[in-house]
Amino acid sequence: MKETIQMREPISWMEYPAWLEAFQQPLPENLAAPGEIAAFEAESFAGENRKNSPSFCFVPDETLGESYILERDDPGKITVRGGEQGILYGTYEALFDLICEKPLPEGIQTPAYSLRMLDSWDNPDGTIERGYAGRSLWFEGGCFSYDPVRIRQLGRMLASTGINVLCINNVNVDASARSLIGDLLPETAGFARLLRPFGIRLMISVDFSSPMAIDNVNPDAGRRALRTADPLDEEVSMWWKNCAARVYEAIPDLAGFLVKADSEHRPGPNTYGRSHAQGANMLAAALAPYGGKLVWRAFVYNCMQDWRDTGTDRPCAAYDLYKPLDGQFADNVILQVKNGPYDFQVREPVSPLLLGMQKTNLAAELQLTQEYTGHQIDLFVMPPLWREFFDRMGKEKISAVAAVSNLGRDENWTGHPFAACNLFAFGQYAWNPNRNPEEVIRRWIRLSGYRKAEEKLTAVLLQSSRIYEKYTAPLGLCWMVNPGEHYGPSPWGYEFQAWGTYNRADRNAVGIDRTASGTGLLKQYPPELALQYEDPSVCPDEYLLFFHRLPYSFLMRDGRTLIQRIYDDHFEGYNEVLRMQQTLSELDLPERDRLAVEERMQMQIHNAREWRDVINTFFHRLSGVPDQYGRKIYN
Amino acid sequence: MKETIQMREPISWMEYPAWLEAFQQPLPENLAAPGEIAAFEAESFAGENRKNSPSFCFVPDETLGESYILERDDPGKITVRGGEQGILYGTYEALFDLICEKPLPEGIQTPAYSLRMLDSWDNPDGTIERGYAGRSLWFEGGCFSYDPVRIRQLGRMLASTGINVLCINNVNVDASARSLIGDLLPETAGFARLLRPFGIRLMISVDFSSPMAIDNVNPDAGRRALRTADPLDEEVSMWWKNCAARVYEAIPDLAGFLVKADSEHRPGPNTYGRSHAQGANMLAAALAPYGGKLVWRAFVYNCMQDWRDTGTDRPCAAYDLYKPLDGQFADNVILQVKNGPYDFQVREPVSPLLLGMQKTNLAAELQLTQEYTGHQIDLFVMPPLWREFFDRMGKEKISAVAAVSNLGRDENWTGHPFAACNLFAFGQYAWNPNRNPEEVIRRWIRLSGYRKAEEKLTAVLLQSSRIYEKYTAPLGLCWMVNPGEHYGPSPWGYEFQAWGTYNRADRNAVGIDRTASGTGLLKQYPPELALQYEDPSVCPDEYLLFFHRLPYSFLMRDGRTLIQRIYDDHFEGYNEVLRMQQTLSELDLPERDRLAVEERMQMQIHNAREWRDVINTFFHRLSGVPDQYGRKIYN
Repeated sequence: MKETIQMREPISWMEYPAWLEAFQQPLPENLAAPGEIAAFEAESFAGENRKNSPSFCFVPDETLGESYILERDDPGKITVRGGEQGILYGTYEALFDLICEKPLPEGIQTPAYSLRMLDSWDNPDGTIERGYAGRSLWFEGGCFSYDPVRIRQLGRMLASTGINVLCINNVNVDASARSLIGDLLPETAGFARLLRPFGIRLMISVDFSSPMAIDNVNPDAGRRALRTADPLDEEVSMWWKNCAARVYEAIPDLAGFLVKADSEHRPGPNTYGRSHAQGANMLAAALAPYGGKLVWRAFVYNCMQDWRDTGTDRPCAAYDLYKPLDGQFADNVILQVKNGPYDFQVREPVSPLLLGMQKTNLAAELQLTQEYTGHQIDLFVMPPLWREFFDRMGKEKISAVAAVSNLGRDENWTGHPFAACNLFAFGQYAWNPNRNPEEVIRRWIRLSGYRKAEEKLTAVLLQSSRIYEKYTAPLGLCWMVNPGEHYGPSPWGYEFQAWGTYNRADRNAVGIDRTASGTGLLKQYPPELALQYEDPSVCPDEYLLFFHRLPYSFLMRDGRTLIQRIYDDHFEGYNEVLRMQQTLSELDLPERDRLAVEERMQMQIHNAREWRDVINTFFHRLSGVPDQYGRKIYN
Repeated sequence: MKETIQMREPISWMEYPAWLEAFQQPLPENLAAPGEIAAFEAESFAGENRKNSPSFCFVPDETLGESYILERDDPGKITVRGGEQGILYGTYEALFDLICEKPLPEGIQTPAYSLRMLDSWDNPDGTIERGYAGRSLWFEGGCFSYDPVRIRQLGRMLASTGINVLCINNVNVDASARSLIGDLLPETAGFARLLRPFGIRLMISVDFSSPMAIDNVNPDAGRRALRTADPLDEEVSMWWKNCAARVYEAIPDLAGFLVKADSEHRPGPNTYGRSHAQGANMLAAALAPYGGKLVWRAFVYNCMQDWRDTGTDRPCAAYDLYKPLDGQFADNVILQVKNGPYDFQVREPVSPLLLGMQKTNLAAELQLTQEYTGHQIDLFVMPPLWREFFDRMGKEKISAVAAVSNLGRDENWTGHPFAACNLFAFGQYAWNPNRNPEEVIRRWIRLSGYRKAEEKLTAVLLQSSRIYEKYTAPLGLCWMVNPGEHYGPSPWGYEFQAWGTYNRADRNAVGIDRTASGTGLLKQYPPELALQYEDPSVCPDEYLLFFHRLPYSFLMRDGRTLIQRIYDDHFEGYNEVLRMQQTLSELDLPERDRLAVEERMQMQIHNAREWRDVINTFFHRLSGVPDQYGRKIYN
């Protein structure tokens, strides 16, 4: 069904300004700094004859940096005070408030996190790992290849919602991506130049074994490959120092390097018997003279597990590895930790590593690209989950946020036009994690030209993640997806594989006991949380099967059995998708979006039906328990 | 583990003459006809100073065609009487008998089937669909690319065992393969020329929709694509007539075209509301003036099935479609039917279509490439199964045989050196399906340089398929493989997919009822067979779960319960693999083979253990029945 989308008359991406609907003027290419962009945006806005459109007055104050203060003493005039970058952020905030008819924020506005990064999993060959919105916006055929007009529009989008770093390449770094800091460095610098006026700095994913690569990562070194990538080897650390010097000469404001090491067959310090702190610190030392950050991903586990081994439990892995290293990381190292201990599943508790590290800079990593949450076909709008995530983690636990991008070369940027809401909202939360999800969604709706549909669309988007959760894997069970692809149900597709992803369902019970008497994951949590989660009668429903192995006859707090709750959720979830479809079909949407929304909703209905029936059949075959209401469960 | 094989010192394919171990002299390139090859082989053989090596006398008799008569009135002289091709076959037979110390066959030797075809699933890009012995021997980079010395050796191998047709390309015909009868035709003709002296004629897989293709399949037509491929359209049949004329001008002895139509998303006559007889006959008419055959694959089923639909049963599909067409196919059409009604599973009953078609030329299609039988890693030697297949089908039911090739560019031709036994044996059975499996295996062993290991190796190979069957899917259940890849266990990996491949296991029972009261597959069988198969107390064990849905408590004839039998088979199968490994390790094998055999056996042990434990765990989780002997079943 996806194919049919391609058969429509092609529409230019210029028709899809995402949430910059009101910003119809293309950005001139000669704008060289945030202040110039702010001035242009303010003037263009006023020039469009809006009623009572105020004039803007900019008061630079470099001590404010990214922060800003908005003042409107006179209804016809807005004063934006800030550092140059702060003035740009303040201008977008003010314009958005005007469009949305909201009051300006009072007092000084400062981002909660100074590093607000979008992680792209783009490969130089133009593919995007786990991308559902077409090919890369900036890579093709092994090198940079882009429309500078579109990249400027991208910068505008990202800056307008507060994102300030773009990691341009996949954490799984292939040979061609190694040359981003080698032969392709001039092109990388050119790309950085294009985004610099927006206050978007680049980050680059690097391969820990680069010094050993025989390809062109280091033309300075006479292309001599080292025999080791041991972080304690002097030649190795010198190689990286030289590399950083070259890279910072070309891109003085580079945000830093991102590394996935010793994970899913990537090289790393463990190869040399060194710790991750030793590995990260060596790289961090190379970046330190230039103010660069070394972002080190904590997504490390045994991906060659034997399913028979019930002692090893993948969600325990990161804490077990990193907690003992707390305090050993250099100041400019940031440990980037996925929101939950597994891997961006539909529902996970907060990673115990985020809760437990005390003396390490932490970044929380979210996933906008809908790998496990519907491939930007099914609706899955994330702010309600982020609200819970920040509340449960405590927003001060981290110093940075990153999110895996959902962007691609599709004309509407994100595959499903409504998936842009997640990108916009991520920027909003990265600036201020205390936001109300409904307000963020409404803001995106008003900015995106969906105002006529605001009430109903807000309701649909607000409940979309909960509905997706209901018709897919139940109660935090995870991993019931089709292997590899991760779309659609396969309850035992991962059950006997090496990835550490098991539900261990049998005819009596389902789930893994992760309490102190089980795999012990709960011992990694702070006592008050562990206490709550370890008792199934108190544990929140959405984590019940994440932490517990329970018989199908287990009585939930509301008096239903576990098996009946599973059936109910799946029947209800599907019916709720039908209601969403009904609601969406009645909305007054822009013509350009209607067909994509309808087509994808038909695919979502198909997917939800598949999930409902496969999961219900799976548990019915195992348990033999009939549905209390006699609804159809297939054999 | 596969990788490590690549890391050994590379050995040339010339070190691996397969079963032509005794034929050390390379074939001169100037041999232009079967008679010249026969003379060369006989002289070279005599020239190697073998004791009492007889001289050969050739008596051409073109009325004998491929047949021959061997006479040895005088111990020092063998007379080979036959058509030119028959003389070559007779010479190889006589030489093989001499090497194997067997008496010459008495009387006229005539092949049971005139079309003895090896079907290659090679793509012009050099890949081989379901290939486990490396890349294509003759394609690379979108065109022909081969070592002519090696292709001559291939011709020698195939002719020596009696194969006379090579279909050179995948039945899934991509755009580049369409040009084999278009722009690449001169190269295709050159390849045909290379194999012609061996009596190997080419067949070409064609795309039913070729007339509509915008690529270069028909340079004559001014590259004008037709708007239809409707077989009753006059322009379409003229297109194919012109095509055949061009192709036969270039390759006058082409065996014909092979077509996969209306199957797994391939185009076909159904698109135009035409029957498969109409589609096949139109193509056959184009080939008829040149004596060409049109081979039409009967592998047609609904590959977009809803798993909820228990009325549709994939093994019924081919008979339902083709039986009503019996008698409607042209004389030069051959319907190529897989041995069983499903798809080359480890164990299937004979296809009811092979048994039921009365007025249609039939070819039986076997699969040498070990798609479902261990990827040429696990040992799976097929003659014992073919013996049963021909016995159960009746060898006179068919007029041709085809087998999907297990060849590739690996130095030893077939990945596992012992997999060559299946290729050799296929030629032997294609010539004479009454052969004794043990004799065929011993013959291959003696010809392949394994004589010192003959007794034990014969025993290992003879039982290898039965052992594989024991540790994989039980009792004819099928499809418990990892989806896509088809190696290793995934008991429900295919269960909720669209391929019509279900076991429908639940906590009480397993299998699909295919009797008259079930899906009705058994109604397609001749009454005497249906009678035997429909009663589980009489049905052969190996088909029990192919035809029946049975409770785990079902009592087998030997008194065991079904579930205990499943456990027993899997424990025993694994243990038998360990014994095979022990036996193989003690064999006196040529140095060139030892490491490959050992490495692959280690992989087979791993695979068998995986199968044993996953299948036992799967059924234990469902049934809750413990193993009677308390052996370890994992949770």
